[in-house]
Amino acid sequence: MADYSIGVDLGGTNLRAAAIDRSGKVLRKISGSTNLSEGRDAVVSDIVAAISSLRDDTDRLAGVGVGVPGFIIMETGIITDSPNLPFFVDFPIRDEISKHLGLPVILENDANVAAMGEKWMGAGRDVDDLVLLTLGTGIGGGIITKGKVMHGFVGMAGELGHLTIVPNKHPCGCGNQGCLEKYASATAIVCMARSLSLGDNLTAEAVSHLAAGGDEKARAIFTTMGQSLGQALAMLVNTFNYPLYLLSGGVLPAWDLFAPAMLAEVRRRSYNFRATNTRIEKATLGNEAGLYGAAYLPFEGLPLQEQ
Amino acid sequence: MADYSIGVDLGGTNLRAAAIDRSGKVLRKISGSTNLSEGRDAVVSDIVAAISSLRDDTDRLAGVGVGVPGFIIMETGIITDSPNLPFFVDFPIRDEISKHLGLPVILENDANVAAMGEKWMGAGRDVDDLVLLTLGTGIGGGIITKGKVMHGFVGMAGELGHLTIVPNKHPCGCGNQGCLEKYASATAIVCMARSLSLGDNLTAEAVSHLAAGGDEKARAIFTTMGQSLGQALAMLVNTFNYPLYLLSGGVLPAWDLFAPAMLAEVRRRSYNFRATNTRIEKATLGNEAGLYGAAYLPFEGLPLQEQ
Repeated sequence: MADYSIGVDLGGTNLRAAAIDRSGKVLRKISGSTNLSEGRDAVVSDIVAAISSLRDDTDRLAGVGVGVPGFIIMETGIITDSPNLPFFVDFPIRDEISKHLGLPVILENDANVAAMGEKWMGAGRDVDDLVLLTLGTGIGGGIITKGKVMHGFVGMAGELGHLTIVPNKHPCGCGNQGCLEKYASATAIVCMARSLSLGDNLTAEAVSHLAAGGDEKARAIFTTMGQSLGQALAMLVNTFNYPLYLLSGGVLPAWDLFAPAMLAEVRRRSYNFRATNTRIEKATLGNEAGLYGAAYLPFEGLPLQEQ
Repeated sequence: MADYSIGVDLGGTNLRAAAIDRSGKVLRKISGSTNLSEGRDAVVSDIVAAISSLRDDTDRLAGVGVGVPGFIIMETGIITDSPNLPFFVDFPIRDEISKHLGLPVILENDANVAAMGEKWMGAGRDVDDLVLLTLGTGIGGGIITKGKVMHGFVGMAGELGHLTIVPNKHPCGCGNQGCLEKYASATAIVCMARSLSLGDNLTAEAVSHLAAGGDEKARAIFTTMGQSLGQALAMLVNTFNYPLYLLSGGVLPAWDLFAPAMLAEVRRRSYNFRATNTRIEKATLGNEAGLYGAAYLPFEGLPLQEQ
């Protein structure tokens, strides 16, 4: 009986993998670096080696799920665009890993697996429908509908970092202007700090320390960030009317700095929010969400009676 | 065997109903006015009379679906807000109709039933997932996911007329500012015509005739409308990655005036749109969409083998 699976979280910096059983218990875990400088084949070998070292009894293995940053064509398992993993673009990464392992592999966007992880074992355990925003270098989105990842017809649903916040402002790499991730990502915080002459080499975390210490310019940055998130969340609430919206990612520790402006803005902008008990909360699994979500993917396809 | 159903389209002006069989054939149809001036009970009586007159063999009747403008609590069948049917707010309209008929009734938002109608018998027949925007006095939205209406946890999903287009502009009755319906509804067209001194008593249709005749100000109104729709559609495409987005409603005949700006804006603003074969098209059923969609609702709940 298939009672455990292996989840892989392939980022631009870290490569992590875990064997997790159906109850959500982590059996074994590996953390390493994504050795981009060694080239594509070396990274594929590292992924395959990680999975192989986590696998023991193949008969009991439900499958392998891999979360990657980028746009994915679900049908072909190909990444069509990925700023963090450029040499995997247009490369059949899913089938390549699968061939080396002799096992089927499910490829999924990293924000989608994080959302699935939170649904399975984190802040979303008590709902079937949720939206997750990951606030990191960029902003990703994952939408869980009736307990499953919403893919759209190609696999590109949930690109919520590119919701338009200020229609004719900051150009974005996606072609749009004024995208959410230009106002509420770690990168945006750093850019705003620079444009307010707070410093040229500050990290988002350093800006949050300044804000926590009472610096007015730094506080204004987090107010802008919160208002932008609130504007985006109001649209998501009006669109989905889901019970739960989660935030995760590297900027989450600054919650107390941006959340008041964010919640005030959602409240003001969404009748739907005011009329219902919609929750906007912190995700709880941190970096582990991607591992849990990736490991859950093979279970999703199995008959319910086995679960 | 349940082989036909009755759909009711209750608007602020018109009350229409039809008996439709499972193949989508309209068996009988009634059109009348919504006699708001006669009061709530009179309108309920009119609805009940319309349904009764369409019903023949009750054993073969799958059920009754009613589409209404407004926010609906699905669980209770109560309308919580409706500018067009104010005296039905907080009134148990679903159960009231049901009691008079001795039949179960399904209540649904009017844009949702229009989307369902287009999915069943109109422009969305070949897909399982679509988003519909109804461009009328206001703007409504209906989202079809895996062949069913997306409700959210209360029943308020799809409030797409309140997507934010210009974050700190025109205040909207919903509490937000710069809502899509302030830029792309018939009401918005009339307001823009007034503010450009085109005339104080022009209808949206009259403005479209001016634009079609080459009036520069009127043309600019439809460009603004198209750009606003394009900005909203880009967000919807990035969010859902569905294959099809439909537009319907009273402003649809002006398609040639607004669609070029709309499509250019979606293309510019959405990587997802440029990378996929996403279609943005006219709905095809016109006012009939609501009748078809309402009539489909009772079929949706029936076992597949009967269909």
